[in-house]
Amino acid sequence: MISFESDYTTGAHPEIFKRLSEINFEHTSGYGTDVYCASAIEKIRKACACPEAEVYFAVGGTQTNQLVVSTMLKDYEGVVAADTGHVAAHEAGAIEHSGHKVLTIPSHQGKMKAEELQAFVKNFYEDGNHEHMVFPGMVYISQPTEYGSLYSKQELEQIAAVCKAYEMILYVDGARLGYALMSEENDVTLPELAKLTDVFYIGGTKVGALCGEAIVFTKNNMPKHFIPLAKQRGALIAKGRLLGIQFDTLFTDDLYLQCGKHAMEQKKKLVSILKNAGFEFFFESPTNQQFVVIEDEKLKKLQEKVAVSFWEKKDETHTVIRFCSSWSTTDEDLATLEQILKVCC
Amino acid sequence: MISFESDYTTGAHPEIFKRLSEINFEHTSGYGTDVYCASAIEKIRKACACPEAEVYFAVGGTQTNQLVVSTMLKDYEGVVAADTGHVAAHEAGAIEHSGHKVLTIPSHQGKMKAEELQAFVKNFYEDGNHEHMVFPGMVYISQPTEYGSLYSKQELEQIAAVCKAYEMILYVDGARLGYALMSEENDVTLPELAKLTDVFYIGGTKVGALCGEAIVFTKNNMPKHFIPLAKQRGALIAKGRLLGIQFDTLFTDDLYLQCGKHAMEQKKKLVSILKNAGFEFFFESPTNQQFVVIEDEKLKKLQEKVAVSFWEKKDETHTVIRFCSSWSTTDEDLATLEQILKVCC
Amino acid sequence: MISFESDYTTGAHPEIFKRLSEINFEHTSGYGTDVYCASAIEKIRKACACPEAEVYFAVGGTQTNQLVVSTMLKDYEGVVAADTGHVAAHEAGAIEHSGHKVLTIPSHQGKMKAEELQAFVKNFYEDGNHEHMVFPGMVYISQPTEYGSLYSKQELEQIAAVCKAYEMILYVDGARLGYALMSEENDVTLPELAKLTDVFYIGGTKVGALCGEAIVFTKNNMPKHFIPLAKQRGALIAKGRLLGIQFDTLFTDDLYLQCGKHAMEQKKKLVSILKNAGFEFFFESPTNQQFVVIEDEKLKKLQEKVAVSFWEKKDETHTVIRFCSSWSTTDEDLATLEQILKVCC
Amino acid sequence: MISFESDYTTGAHPEIFKRLSEINFEHTSGYGTDVYCASAIEKIRKACACPEAEVYFAVGGTQTNQLVVSTMLKDYEGVVAADTGHVAAHEAGAIEHSGHKVLTIPSHQGKMKAEELQAFVKNFYEDGNHEHMVFPGMVYISQPTEYGSLYSKQELEQIAAVCKAYEMILYVDGARLGYALMSEENDVTLPELAKLTDVFYIGGTKVGALCGEAIVFTKNNMPKHFIPLAKQRGALIAKGRLLGIQFDTLFTDDLYLQCGKHAMEQKKKLVSILKNAGFEFFFESPTNQQFVVIEDEKLKKLQEKVAVSFWEKKDETHTVIRFCSSWSTTDEDLATLEQILKVCC
Repeated sequence: MISFESDYTTGAHPEIFKRLSEINFEHTSGYGTDVYCASAIEKIRKACACPEAEVYFAVGGTQTNQLVVSTMLKDYEGVVAADTGHVAAHEAGAIEHSGHKVLTIPSHQGKMKAEELQAFVKNFYEDGNHEHMVFPGMVYISQPTEYGSLYSKQELEQIAAVCKAYEMILYVDGARLGYALMSEENDVTLPELAKLTDVFYIGGTKVGALCGEAIVFTKNNMPKHFIPLAKQRGALIAKGRLLGIQFDTLFTDDLYLQCGKHAMEQKKKLVSILKNAGFEFFFESPTNQQFVVIEDEKLKKLQEKVAVSFWEKKDETHTVIRFCSSWSTTDEDLATLEQILKVCC
Repeated sequence: MISFESDYTTGAHPEIFKRLSEINFEHTSGYGTDVYCASAIEKIRKACACPEAEVYFAVGGTQTNQLVVSTMLKDYEGVVAADTGHVAAHEAGAIEHSGHKVLTIPSHQGKMKAEELQAFVKNFYEDGNHEHMVFPGMVYISQPTEYGSLYSKQELEQIAAVCKAYEMILYVDGARLGYALMSEENDVTLPELAKLTDVFYIGGTKVGALCGEAIVFTKNNMPKHFIPLAKQRGALIAKGRLLGIQFDTLFTDDLYLQCGKHAMEQKKKLVSILKNAGFEFFFESPTNQQFVVIEDEKLKKLQEKVAVSFWEKKDETHTVIRFCSSWSTTDEDLATLEQILKVCC
Repeated sequence: MISFESDYTTGAHPEIFKRLSEINFEHTSGYGTDVYCASAIEKIRKACACPEAEVYFAVGGTQTNQLVVSTMLKDYEGVVAADTGHVAAHEAGAIEHSGHKVLTIPSHQGKMKAEELQAFVKNFYEDGNHEHMVFPGMVYISQPTEYGSLYSKQELEQIAAVCKAYEMILYVDGARLGYALMSEENDVTLPELAKLTDVFYIGGTKVGALCGEAIVFTKNNMPKHFIPLAKQRGALIAKGRLLGIQFDTLFTDDLYLQCGKHAMEQKKKLVSILKNAGFEFFFESPTNQQFVVIEDEKLKKLQEKVAVSFWEKKDETHTVIRFCSSWSTTDEDLATLEQILKVCC
Repeated sequence: MISFESDYTTGAHPEIFKRLSEINFEHTSGYGTDVYCASAIEKIRKACACPEAEVYFAVGGTQTNQLVVSTMLKDYEGVVAADTGHVAAHEAGAIEHSGHKVLTIPSHQGKMKAEELQAFVKNFYEDGNHEHMVFPGMVYISQPTEYGSLYSKQELEQIAAVCKAYEMILYVDGARLGYALMSEENDVTLPELAKLTDVFYIGGTKVGALCGEAIVFTKNNMPKHFIPLAKQRGALIAKGRLLGIQFDTLFTDDLYLQCGKHAMEQKKKLVSILKNAGFEFFFESPTNQQFVVIEDEKLKKLQEKVAVSFWEKKDETHTVIRFCSSWSTTDEDLATLEQILKVCC
């Protein structure tokens, strides 16, 4: 059975195994104090054109979101997110478990609007009772969003301006950042992202790594004593080099961007195959996630041969499903998909 | 420079890379629902002679301890540990961060005594004010301990009996369990450990894996809805197979025990080298951690050529240092160490 | 200046001072173990026709909500509330601070609809990803609501049925319960409330007490070891009798209901005065909170002579304000209000 | 039956009832924004000779400790206390419930020694692994201590010096501060306490109030947005005036000190009675708590007529019990005690 279910269903880019194996019997110090972490940090700083950036490597996305939000917010603050934001909807309450409220505003295909954010925060401060409410201390957006959509540079600038006006931290979840960066419709570079945000993460798990996310604090704002803060949250690993070596590899010879580029090329082919098969697009995204509507009968048949993600029920007889391309999507699998769709859809 | 600093300073057993590479482009479902996790669980059950065991794979040791303690204790309960226990001393307060007190009793070369545990708990329940105190809900021990020492089967049985009498969960931290199991002085098998405890973990990070710890719930007592509980604590990773494949490999053809055996063989040689060099042993442990006393002057010289762990100051002019063997300790490094010691100590 | 700002702006019913003074030099044991707490509990059981009820006295409303929610929910669960619910909007994130998410559904003049609750929970369980989401473990409603509205017996039964079907705890915030019970439009008695809910609280602070709320667990479901659980949350006071004596007094000779009745009588007069003054009612509630629309110009003048609560801006030139009656509202104040309104509005 | 069990077994000083009654029907704004809170704060500032002090009124002692510790510490910090300190031993883990570890050092009749504190903190910073440990961010002491003992001015200065050297907050729990201040053996005035500490609280519950503790931040260091921080912890009450009026009364005409003085006078008589009855003093404290050793047989008889506190078992046949005097101890009760002791001990 072939799979277009997600971008975390395979292993890692072979170059990563190569490096891990080469270094395998070399001794390094623990907890991220090794030379490979140091080298990876240096390369990320360069890629971000942000020499003063502080970088921390965490293992997974929800861990990263919880770590960033709970160490950067004050107790009386919450984080504002679109109601479809990962922190709001699909992290089993990890943010609340850390003591903070997720304040939601409407989602527009996964994105928040700067003017709605502005209105929300303005209302808060104008409410005479706001000392009895949760302060908006941070804004969380994802690039690309959970729906694969992208914030334009202008949109990011507008959101950043609201954050600045109300002294809120702007945090970007880049679980799939590589796919945003290499999308043809993207106009936000990594250095621009670093400049416009206070903190963001470069997702490894979904873009070619075995595991790992690189948190980038861009404004000399990494919380003091971040090591014990991370350890308290179970986010410090003894063999920290596992993350350092991977990011060092991903940021050597633009491998991270190559992973993104491959996925975008395969996404084009995927969209074309889905269109040829006559699918209605629920949402045609500029990145590697594609949402189409399918009759439930056909879905049953399809799922015997292709793994896809259930997204939501559209109506009594139709379902929205997600197809993903990734750094590892092969032409063979795309060809097989095309054949299957000819038969069953 | 050679290193005897710790058992997490190298990569992973080559067999693990081999398996990861073989499976690399195979698609599997996420979050630990894949076939490799399932296979690893089945093999661990067999190795523990505990077919009903429930197994969860976490990434690191402190994460594991926090996850187990905070999901199994009730809010009004704390965990009893020797005052040298990892949860008490060296996790940056991860247990307290999760809301629970670590109740400490004296350590005897890393171990607690059953009779002192019994007295502590008895006193608690006899105190008329105990509803204003923290209830002892769990007992935490490590096997081997942080000092490399081992609980004998009899000692474990005695502690287990106290736990049973007072309805406390018995939890064993097995960060270095492989080294305990293969120690010549060990008389507790994996099935016996499974039988005597309520929950324990089989450490991977320090015994041949890139990362990963296998939590084994032995009494049908995995907390309900453990997936969201883990996710809330940042302890659920998308590419769960990374952990499953590793443990599946470690529990194939006794690789885990082979890792332990190798470290114990090298430990013997290490002890002999250290003795020949005339070191006073602060504590000669039955497992892979060895503690010796060294003059500060000599230590300075030594550290130019060999990485070791500082343990504690013994007096004004002497220091206790730790040498570790591991699954990856080579004869070459031991020979080099022997030469260096001849010259500088 | 007179005040209709809220129902917590005066002291306590004189009968309470009388009893506190009478008992003042009598020695009693601490932490709620005294005879007055015991007597109060017995009287509350009778008033609720629920002899097995377990009762705990806390100090204030937000403390009570946090205590109930955080001790009754499991870690992976959140509490469902109307988006205007006190726990959702005006407790500075106390529920999230305790680790739990408030899951919101639409408010209809302060109330949730059973069918919308049902749809929300059904959707949750039908979502294939629900193990990555927050489980609905409890339903929070207030009686009367934050808008002064009331759930009818039928509405409560419908909500209770949904709770039962999905094994959710039904919790009623009765901060102003006395005013609900004595409203002419109310058809839910205290025994019926006890029967339909799993836990609720009888508000003292706003209904004649100096402070204090009586939490009533109606289904033998007070969390085990509630004393340390409360103490951990700062909700156990040494001089527990302060709460016991007050509730014992309020539940002697129906004083609690008398307080409610007085407020309802004064509310009638208040509504009549506001109507005669020509106010548009934003929402005419069946209990002691009344919401009217006022031109901003007039509001300025009014506030020089009468304290009222700002509720929300209606439009550029109008504001919604709240008038409250209470157990202590005097005819004199009502007469003065009438005079003031004649002049300034 | 008479009682010397504790200092919280009676009501409040009659002057407090008088003031509460006088103001009863006056309307004031809620949540501590009323004129009586403001007046009380002003009087406390004067009594402390600290015009810039920020004062917050909480309801009870454990709530206060949790509020101060958890809002002033950073996540990676814990609080250092003598192992007999209330926060360490008898708050059901309230500090840990708020996420922070209590780091204990030895108690000497309830007190810590500055040199032991210094050694503890010095060791911490010299430990190469201290980023994996809990940082000492605050020092907690009680005045008087849980054993009734007092820190001298010199001892306080020494502890304050250690705190300053290591940038730790010095916090004094003054649950029974009135009894310290009026002890003949005390040489620390309220202004000196304010000067030497960063934050302390003036206990009301045990010194004449119905409930309430006044937290005094002496160094412009009240955490920002303390209202929502307190509300999140259930420590903000709607009818805040209840606390303000009480402290306003206690700090009018030195009523607080009068309460302390009375207890100290009665303590003298109590000690004399106990001595005459031949009791061995386990610890003869300079304040209102007195600890004597009694044979278990005699204790049984005594407890039929006098309520006392069990402290601890001394040996198989003897118990340490506590007698307390308080602001409300009467000469009649002392005379009765004397008679009873003549008969039964």
